[in-house]
Amino acid sequence: MGQNDRPRTVVVWGENRHEQVEEHVRALYPDGMHETIRSAVEEHLGGSVSVSTATLDQPEHGLDADRLADVDVLVWWGHAAHGEVRDDVVERVHQRVLEGMGLVVLHSGHWSKLFVKLMGTTCTLRWRSEHDRELVWTVNPTHPIAQGVPNPIVIPEQEMYGEFFDVPVPDELVFISSFSGGEVFRSGMTFRRGHGKIFYFSPGDQDFPVYHHPDVRRVIANGVDWVAPALPAPALPTLLRYESGEFFEGHDYRGAMNADDRVARS
Amino acid sequence: MGQNDRPRTVVVWGENRHEQVEEHVRALYPDGMHETIRSAVEEHLGGSVSVSTATLDQPEHGLDADRLADVDVLVWWGHAAHGEVRDDVVERVHQRVLEGMGLVVLHSGHWSKLFVKLMGTTCTLRWRSEHDRELVWTVNPTHPIAQGVPNPIVIPEQEMYGEFFDVPVPDELVFISSFSGGEVFRSGMTFRRGHGKIFYFSPGDQDFPVYHHPDVRRVIANGVDWVAPALPAPALPTLLRYESGEFFEGHDYRGAMNADDRVARS
Amino acid sequence: MGQNDRPRTVVVWGENRHEQVEEHVRALYPDGMHETIRSAVEEHLGGSVSVSTATLDQPEHGLDADRLADVDVLVWWGHAAHGEVRDDVVERVHQRVLEGMGLVVLHSGHWSKLFVKLMGTTCTLRWRSEHDRELVWTVNPTHPIAQGVPNPIVIPEQEMYGEFFDVPVPDELVFISSFSGGEVFRSGMTFRRGHGKIFYFSPGDQDFPVYHHPDVRRVIANGVDWVAPALPAPALPTLLRYESGEFFEGHDYRGAMNADDRVARS
Amino acid sequence: MGQNDRPRTVVVWGENRHEQVEEHVRALYPDGMHETIRSAVEEHLGGSVSVSTATLDQPEHGLDADRLADVDVLVWWGHAAHGEVRDDVVERVHQRVLEGMGLVVLHSGHWSKLFVKLMGTTCTLRWRSEHDRELVWTVNPTHPIAQGVPNPIVIPEQEMYGEFFDVPVPDELVFISSFSGGEVFRSGMTFRRGHGKIFYFSPGDQDFPVYHHPDVRRVIANGVDWVAPALPAPALPTLLRYESGEFFEGHDYRGAMNADDRVARS
Repeated sequence: MGQNDRPRTVVVWGENRHEQVEEHVRALYPDGMHETIRSAVEEHLGGSVSVSTATLDQPEHGLDADRLADVDVLVWWGHAAHGEVRDDVVERVHQRVLEGMGLVVLHSGHWSKLFVKLMGTTCTLRWRSEHDRELVWTVNPTHPIAQGVPNPIVIPEQEMYGEFFDVPVPDELVFISSFSGGEVFRSGMTFRRGHGKIFYFSPGDQDFPVYHHPDVRRVIANGVDWVAPALPAPALPTLLRYESGEFFEGHDYRGAMNADDRVARS
Repeated sequence: MGQNDRPRTVVVWGENRHEQVEEHVRALYPDGMHETIRSAVEEHLGGSVSVSTATLDQPEHGLDADRLADVDVLVWWGHAAHGEVRDDVVERVHQRVLEGMGLVVLHSGHWSKLFVKLMGTTCTLRWRSEHDRELVWTVNPTHPIAQGVPNPIVIPEQEMYGEFFDVPVPDELVFISSFSGGEVFRSGMTFRRGHGKIFYFSPGDQDFPVYHHPDVRRVIANGVDWVAPALPAPALPTLLRYESGEFFEGHDYRGAMNADDRVARS
Repeated sequence: MGQNDRPRTVVVWGENRHEQVEEHVRALYPDGMHETIRSAVEEHLGGSVSVSTATLDQPEHGLDADRLADVDVLVWWGHAAHGEVRDDVVERVHQRVLEGMGLVVLHSGHWSKLFVKLMGTTCTLRWRSEHDRELVWTVNPTHPIAQGVPNPIVIPEQEMYGEFFDVPVPDELVFISSFSGGEVFRSGMTFRRGHGKIFYFSPGDQDFPVYHHPDVRRVIANGVDWVAPALPAPALPTLLRYESGEFFEGHDYRGAMNADDRVARS
Repeated sequence: MGQNDRPRTVVVWGENRHEQVEEHVRALYPDGMHETIRSAVEEHLGGSVSVSTATLDQPEHGLDADRLADVDVLVWWGHAAHGEVRDDVVERVHQRVLEGMGLVVLHSGHWSKLFVKLMGTTCTLRWRSEHDRELVWTVNPTHPIAQGVPNPIVIPEQEMYGEFFDVPVPDELVFISSFSGGEVFRSGMTFRRGHGKIFYFSPGDQDFPVYHHPDVRRVIANGVDWVAPALPAPALPTLLRYESGEFFEGHDYRGAMNADDRVARS
C-alpha cells in the first residue's frame, strides 16, 4: 500500500504503434503490450495498486499535468516513435521523477527521450533481433527486485542487447543477461535521481511473447514495488539559503549578484 | 603527457562576470578567476599540458567547434550567468564529454546547464555565504586526485555548500567537507559519462581567495590529470547491430520498422 | 512481518560492561544499553518483531547455535571488551550473516571482531570524546533507513568519530555526520555480504544518552527493518559444479585434483 | 615508475603444484604458470618494474617479512593447495595490502585464504571445466585496466566461472564474461581495502593456455599498474585520538576504560 494506505496509482505507458502496424505483434499482444504489462503488475501487486494505461496517441500522450500529479509509479515502453514524444511532456515527466515518482523503464525504452535525459548519456548499446535465447542471471540475490524468480530466468527467444551499454554506473546492479550469441548485458539496474527511484529492465520485446513470461512479469511487479515513492509527498529538491545555526528553515535564492542582498548566493 | 606524447590541451572556461562588475572580486583575481585557475594547472602539470582560457563573452563563448575538437580537458567555472550560455554550445560540449573529453566542474558550476544535463538531476543544494571555515576531508586516500594534500585541507573562509546535494550517486566519493556552521558536503566526486570522465570539486568562490590556496590548486591539477581522455581517439558510443558470431564489425541502425529490413532493430 | 507472517526474531547484543563498572553509564542506562536499544526496536516495529537481548557474560555470549539459528536480525553493540568475544562465536555469527541473517552494527561495534571480519579492513577511525555536537545529515533521502527523521538529526553531545574510516566503499551511503570540532564521518552505511544485509550506524555511546534520542531510535528501527532477511530460508552461498545446459542442479565440489574425477574443478 | 623513480617491485606468487603433478599442465607451462605470468608483466611494463616470483614450497612460501616489506605489487595464483598456505603468512600479506601494497588476484585465487579474508564473504561461485569459450566484455571502457584490448576478448577454451559470485559489490566493475554454456561472470573487478588497491581477474587456468593469450597478458599488466601503491610510503590505517581543533597530530589509543585517562576512547 502507498501512503495513507490508499492503493498506489500506477500508469503503464505504451507507445502502441507496433501493435497497430505489425500483424505478428498484434497476434502476441492483441490488446497492446501496455495491457499485458498492466496485467503483470495487477497479478502480483493486487489491491495494493490501481493500474491504468496511457498511450502515445492520446492527447498529451495520456500524461496531462493533472493526471501525472497523482501518479506514484510510471512504467515506460517505447520504441519506434521515441521522436514523436513531445518535449514538454518529457520535461513534465522528468520533473515528476525528480519529485519522487517511481519509474520503471522497459527494454527499448532505453532510448526514450525521458531515459536519456535522466541518464545524461547516449544510452546506446549493441543489438540484434535473431531469436537468441536470453538468460537473466541474478548478481544481487538479496535485492527485493530479484525475489521470487529462478537464477537464471530462461527466456527462449529474445532480441539481443549487448555491452557496452552507455549509461552511468548504476546504484545497484541486479541482473546480468547472456545471449546465445555470447553477448552480455546489464539487464537489471537501479538508479536514484532527485527524489525518484528508477528501475531499468531490458527483457521484453514486441516480436516475442516476453511480457507473458511469468518470471519477467514478476520482476516488473517487483520493480514497480521497489520504485514506489519513499517520501510522504512529492517534493522537488530545491536550492535554498540557510543562515548559520539554522538547519530547517531555508529561504529562496534571490540571484547571484543582487545589490540589495549581499547575502545572496555568492 | 597525452596520446602520442604531445602535451594535453586543457581549456579553462571562466564566466568572467563577477571580476568585471565587483571590485572585491577583481581585487582577488585581477586577471580573472580563469587565469588563476589556469596557473594552478600549469604549476602542477607543467610541460605535460598546454593550457589556455575561454570566457563567456567571446564568440561562441570561446568554444567553437574547431577549437573544441582538439580539447582534451575542459575546466568549467560559471555562476551568475548560467542562463546566458547558449544551448547549442552546451549541446556541443556535452557531446564532446560523451566522446571522451575530460571535464572538471568547479564550485558554482554545479548549476551550469552543462553539469545539469550530464547529471540528469536538479543539482541543487543548500548554501550560505558567511565566511565559514571549510575543512575538506579525504575519504578515499588512495585515489589519485587525493594525492599530495593534507587531510583535511583547511580553507579559512568559504561559501557554505550543504547536503542534500541532488546529484546521482558518484562513481567515487573522494572528499567530504564540513563547514563552521555544521553542514557537510560531498565536495569531491567522480562520474563517468559515455567515454568521458568528470570530476566535480566544490571549493572555490569569487568572494574568497580560494583559487590561490595551494592545496586547492593541487587538487584541481590532480583532477585535470585524472579526467584526461582514456581512449586513443574521440568516439561517441553508438548504437550498432552485430550479426551472430560477429563481435567487432557492427553496422548502422536502419530504423525501428523498416519493411525492407526485417533485421532492423525490433 | 517476516516470512510466513510470523514476527521477526531480533536479538540486541550488548557487551554490558560499562553499565556495571561506570556509575555515570548506569545512570544513563539503568537496565543496560541493550535494553534501551531493544525498546527502540519495539517502539517502532511493534508486533512485527519479537525482540530479546543477549550479553557478553552469558554462556556463549547468549549466542549459542540453537538460538542463533532462529535469529532474523542481530543488533551489535560492543566496546571495551571486543577482545573477550570468543572466536568460535564470532565465526558462528559471521556464517549466519552470510546465510542471510541481518546485522545492525552500532557505534563502537566498528572495532568488533565480527565487523572487522566482515569488512576485511582495519575499521579504524579518528575519535575524541569531548561533548561535541553531532549533526547527522541525510545524503540519500529516498533510502528506507532515512525515513521519518529530520535532516539533520541534531545530537547535542556525542563522541567524535572522524575520517578516514577504514572500511570498504559502502553499497549505499545514507548519512554523513559533522561534529563541532569540524570532523566528518560516514555515519550510516549499508553493505551486503553473502546473503546478509548489514547496516552500520555510528551515533550512540555509553557516556551520552544517545540511545534515548527519538531520531536515533527511529533510525535503528529502520535499520532493523531494512536488514531483515530477503531469502525465504537461510542458505550459505556454496561452490557447486553445473554441467553444460544445466542451470539449476549443481553438485558438490570433489577437490581440485581428483584422479577419479577429471571434471573436478580445475 | 614507482615512487622516487625506482622500478616497482612486483612478485608473482604461484602455487606451482599442478605443474609438478599433471603432465598436461607442465606441457602448457613448462617453467610454471608463475613464470608465464611474470613474463606478461615484464612484456608490458618493461623497465618500470622489477618482477620476481615466489612459490608455495619455498620457506615461508617465499614471502618472508623482509622480502614482503619491499613488495609494491603482489600477483596471486593458487588453486589446489589453498589450505596449505600458512595462516601467519596470510596475516602478513593481508596487513601489507592494508598498508598499501597492490594485489592482483587471478582466477582460482578467488578461494585463497587471502582473498576470502579481504572480502569477508564465502567467495564461492558456480563452475565447470568443459572447454567453454569465454568472451570477456568491457563494461567500463575508460578504465585504465581495459585499455589496449578488444571488446570482447575471445578466449577459445576456458573453465566456466558463473554467478552468483559471492563477493562484496566491487568499487568498479570492469569486465563481464560470458561462456558457451550461457553463464555470466563479473570477471574484472576492483576493490580498495585499507590503503591497498586490489584487482580480481578471473580468466586463467592451469588446463588451458590462457596465460599465453596476448589480451589476457595485457590486462594482467594493466592491473599491476593500476594497483601500484598510491601513497609515498606504507602506512596502516590506525585508530588515533585528536584533540579539538587539532587535525594532524593524533595520539595513541590508551584503552576503553582507563581510569587515569577519562578522555580515553569511550
